[in-house]
Amino acid sequence: MAEFQKPRGTRDFAPEEMARRRFVEANMRRTAELFGFGEVMTPTFESTELFVARSGEGIIDELYAFEDKGSRKISLRPELTASVMRFYVNEMQNLPKPVKIFYFGNCFRYERPQAGRYREFWQFGAELIGAPSIESDAEVIALALATLKNLGLKDVVVRIGHLSILNKFIRDLKISDNAEKEARRLIDKRNFEDLRSMLDGANANDEAIARLIELVSLDGDEAIRRAKEEAGNNEGFGYLANLLERLRAYGFDNCQLDFGVARGLDYYTGMVFEIDAPSLGAEKQVCGGGAYTLADLFGGQEVNSTGYAFGFDRIMLALEKSGVTVPSQNLSVYILPIGDEAKITAIQILSELRNAGISADMDLMGRNMSKAMKYANSIGVTKTILIGDNELAENSVTVRDMRSGVQEKYPISDILRAFFKNIP
Amino acid sequence: MAEFQKPRGTRDFAPEEMARRRFVEANMRRTAELFGFGEVMTPTFESTELFVARSGEGIIDELYAFEDKGSRKISLRPELTASVMRFYVNEMQNLPKPVKIFYFGNCFRYERPQAGRYREFWQFGAELIGAPSIESDAEVIALALATLKNLGLKDVVVRIGHLSILNKFIRDLKISDNAEKEARRLIDKRNFEDLRSMLDGANANDEAIARLIELVSLDGDEAIRRAKEEAGNNEGFGYLANLLERLRAYGFDNCQLDFGVARGLDYYTGMVFEIDAPSLGAEKQVCGGGAYTLADLFGGQEVNSTGYAFGFDRIMLALEKSGVTVPSQNLSVYILPIGDEAKITAIQILSELRNAGISADMDLMGRNMSKAMKYANSIGVTKTILIGDNELAENSVTVRDMRSGVQEKYPISDILRAFFKNIP
Repeated sequence: MAEFQKPRGTRDFAPEEMARRRFVEANMRRTAELFGFGEVMTPTFESTELFVARSGEGIIDELYAFEDKGSRKISLRPELTASVMRFYVNEMQNLPKPVKIFYFGNCFRYERPQAGRYREFWQFGAELIGAPSIESDAEVIALALATLKNLGLKDVVVRIGHLSILNKFIRDLKISDNAEKEARRLIDKRNFEDLRSMLDGANANDEAIARLIELVSLDGDEAIRRAKEEAGNNEGFGYLANLLERLRAYGFDNCQLDFGVARGLDYYTGMVFEIDAPSLGAEKQVCGGGAYTLADLFGGQEVNSTGYAFGFDRIMLALEKSGVTVPSQNLSVYILPIGDEAKITAIQILSELRNAGISADMDLMGRNMSKAMKYANSIGVTKTILIGDNELAENSVTVRDMRSGVQEKYPISDILRAFFKNIP
Repeated sequence: MAEFQKPRGTRDFAPEEMARRRFVEANMRRTAELFGFGEVMTPTFESTELFVARSGEGIIDELYAFEDKGSRKISLRPELTASVMRFYVNEMQNLPKPVKIFYFGNCFRYERPQAGRYREFWQFGAELIGAPSIESDAEVIALALATLKNLGLKDVVVRIGHLSILNKFIRDLKISDNAEKEARRLIDKRNFEDLRSMLDGANANDEAIARLIELVSLDGDEAIRRAKEEAGNNEGFGYLANLLERLRAYGFDNCQLDFGVARGLDYYTGMVFEIDAPSLGAEKQVCGGGAYTLADLFGGQEVNSTGYAFGFDRIMLALEKSGVTVPSQNLSVYILPIGDEAKITAIQILSELRNAGISADMDLMGRNMSKAMKYANSIGVTKTILIGDNELAENSVTVRDMRSGVQEKYPISDILRAFFKNIP
């Protein structure tokens, strides 16, 4: 019979990779909990309408869609914000505010697979619902940055913008809705050359074009200086200057402003931000988020919300490219019983070690000494325990330190002393 | 706009429940790693044929099936063994033996929802591939039992059988294949009354019926006595007696034999076992597994394997019914800044606590003292930190122990001393 293959665009994860992913997941979860966020989980599929309500009809082509036994149209989730906000509207609207929740889950995108893009991928995100916006925005950006810092991912760049600023400059262009949409797309891609010729073609006001391109081209300190200068004249600029002050209090004093962050979904209302890991090259964005109202779109009461999602797979890649390592998951001990009689003793010692929290395995294959040592070396254990006839006769075992090669005998009744030197 | 609802037969998990589930998941993962098993993950969907190859055509009605962009038939996984063995055949056949892997993932069953049965549910399982069967079987049952023991789930019952025994007694009935199948189903349900009348109707040999029903009715010590008595005559009985000796060496000295464990899937070959949590009542089975050959069914080389799957949702229910609690995930500290000036100081203290590994939150809602205290009590924090004008003037804060009500002042520069008394 021919082998079966995994579906196109999906992945299998082997133990070494999985251990790294679980370590990173646990680290991210720990940071969210330190910030007082609580984890939620929603179903892997939802009604197709929910995703359309969030993202528009265009999303349908990218969904894995099917019908349930009641002929209701359902789809695998392409992202998690819609599900989480649906859950909030159904069951959390009456909780004391703010509601601080995070999630980690797989998402599905029904598109032609490309390098680094998968049909099943993972997102780790957070939503803060129901607090005044400046407090929410600062706390949420701080959580995103603390998460990356606690993972050891240095040199990330956060770029923060405000849609009320961008929208004002775009409105001044006096162009059609479709042209506005195209302008946002080009701004988001930082393709200012095509932006200029597109706007020229759309008969936008020359001065407004120049002012827009000057704004979205502002870099680093220039952008911050502009925000401070204009703080009195324009609410958005003042808001961002205030936000930066709070982020400094959180300990993040090198946040950047980028008035060209557009995000591209209609439900974003104010602050928007993106985080890049420059080590990733062209596909460097690892996080996107902002302030939004979405609960009312889903039939709930209007409420201030701020949230973001990390692309978990990109974070894994960025950690790898940056040389961040995670603790080894290697087995500690390998036990080699020589002969049948030693097997039962080996099992007893095996269980004693595992009960004491030491990861341990024994030879199940009947390997001889030389093959067993080779195997023990290949899997990187710290110690090997040998149990042969001589040892059994003395009720003892030989413990070999695999790094130094030193062998010592221990009474079976005192085997834990080989691992915990200070047992009384 | 009307609210959206979650799909029928699915669940949302709120933070408290999610924290319990993640705690149990991490505990189970830790035990598997102590045993030298490594985690794998496979895609949420696979080719429909894979599941049919494992479970037969009958499975199709229970699958969430759709087509991918290449018109290939794919389905959400109804269980994980097929996926994991597919992964083994694709990429792990040439690894040194044994291959010890475990998994935790969601599965999907497209059936009419019933009480306690969900369309999306979770399994935690393990497979040991490529070792001689007695060693595999003992190690795998020991892992399942150690997992439950480490969770604090007492009073579970493991029932171990062997298909070579059951099959011999069934063959002696001399009935049709379909009648054999029906007999297995009734044995599995322990419905011996219907079994007897069905076998009478199928013209089975009277003596063989009596011998079969006597065998599968054997309880506790009777079954173990029978295995020892027959060990010399019947390979299966001898095997189980040997297996029980090994499980005793692992520290599990109250394993039961049950010659009626049938499992019902054709690829099981020898030892089969089930674990019950009696606290669950009628739906008490939390684990099922056994020895199988499946790799060859999927195009790989034939290889000894033993594995099992826990029903994770049933384990959660059993823990709850047994009163097993998990550590509280409550927030430790709530900071209340009084007035605008205090907010920036509050953020700085908040970040210092979180950086020190203390979970902390601050008031984002502008609550007054009395409302804030009520809120802090309701979320169960250990300490509240108050920052008002008096405190700011002295560069200090007031720390209130929420259990005792005692309040103490601490300099802001020394705030961690309120949490770590032995700072030099």
